[in-house]
Amino acid sequence: MDRLSSRYRLAALEGDIATERDAERLRAMGIPARQILTGGACHLDARQVQKELSEARFSSFDILFIENVGNLICPTSYDLGEDFKIALLSVAEGEDKPYKYPAIFSRAKATVITKIDLLEHVEFDVEAVRTQVKTLNPEGVFLTTSARTGNGMDEWIEFLVAALNQKRRL
Amino acid sequence: MDRLSSRYRLAALEGDIATERDAERLRAMGIPARQILTGGACHLDARQVQKELSEARFSSFDILFIENVGNLICPTSYDLGEDFKIALLSVAEGEDKPYKYPAIFSRAKATVITKIDLLEHVEFDVEAVRTQVKTLNPEGVFLTTSARTGNGMDEWIEFLVAALNQKRRL
Repeated sequence: MDRLSSRYRLAALEGDIATERDAERLRAMGIPARQILTGGACHLDARQVQKELSEARFSSFDILFIENVGNLICPTSYDLGEDFKIALLSVAEGEDKPYKYPAIFSRAKATVITKIDLLEHVEFDVEAVRTQVKTLNPEGVFLTTSARTGNGMDEWIEFLVAALNQKRRL
Repeated sequence: MDRLSSRYRLAALEGDIATERDAERLRAMGIPARQILTGGACHLDARQVQKELSEARFSSFDILFIENVGNLICPTSYDLGEDFKIALLSVAEGEDKPYKYPAIFSRAKATVITKIDLLEHVEFDVEAVRTQVKTLNPEGVFLTTSARTGNGMDEWIEFLVAALNQKRRL
């Protein structure tokens, strides 16, 4: 985030059932962020995003991240007005998740495998997962990252910057 | 599972969006298991459980496990006819999950922290999580386990056997 925020103006909306923790963590890093609490619903909807954006009065930004409520199911079906969806899967979550939850992996512009610093401690065959994701979504980008070691962050940032530049050219 | 299945007759219903993988894994271990595929729904309901049980014709069992679709939200609200719910949280999922998803942790008879073999590789303060869970659910049991090392499995089996014995006395 530091590397991206030094070059681009970032903002974030964080979806959760309860607690402001995610937004607080981002604000502590200097990134304007608002928490949307659903109370119990398993996803955000476009109306919540619109309401929060209008109340937030973020100064202008280059990239808005919307972190939906954490699960691989409900967020899939709702268009929040985003340019694209990203699916995150940590290596500790098990290597058959794409086939178990095909909708989100089929629709995501990129699948980002996270916590690859744990790879030597868990059973997670990255190439098997890549094959599953490519089967579901041949056009999708497949990235592997570790926020802890920084591994793969160059490629993730390149992906975001390329998407931003493409949108600006449109 | 081996240690439990040598003493008790087990059976399982496995909920997922897609794939028979979980049920197949259990059947490979000799445990009668049926997969319920929701297609896209984020939880099981009691009707699906009833239908599957009547079609499964399991021989009689002592303990039926129902693994709901994997998320901390939707399964909370549905009574499947179970005796009690168990909340599972792996140490790789982050230590603020109970406060973010209070409903399931408030209602579970036990919270089982899984994958504690990864504790030295992730930021997860077990005592902080125990405090969160106990705040939400003072009566709930709190267990820590690793399926890989077997750590904590004695206490988990004791918990299940005690619950079974209590039900038989009623």
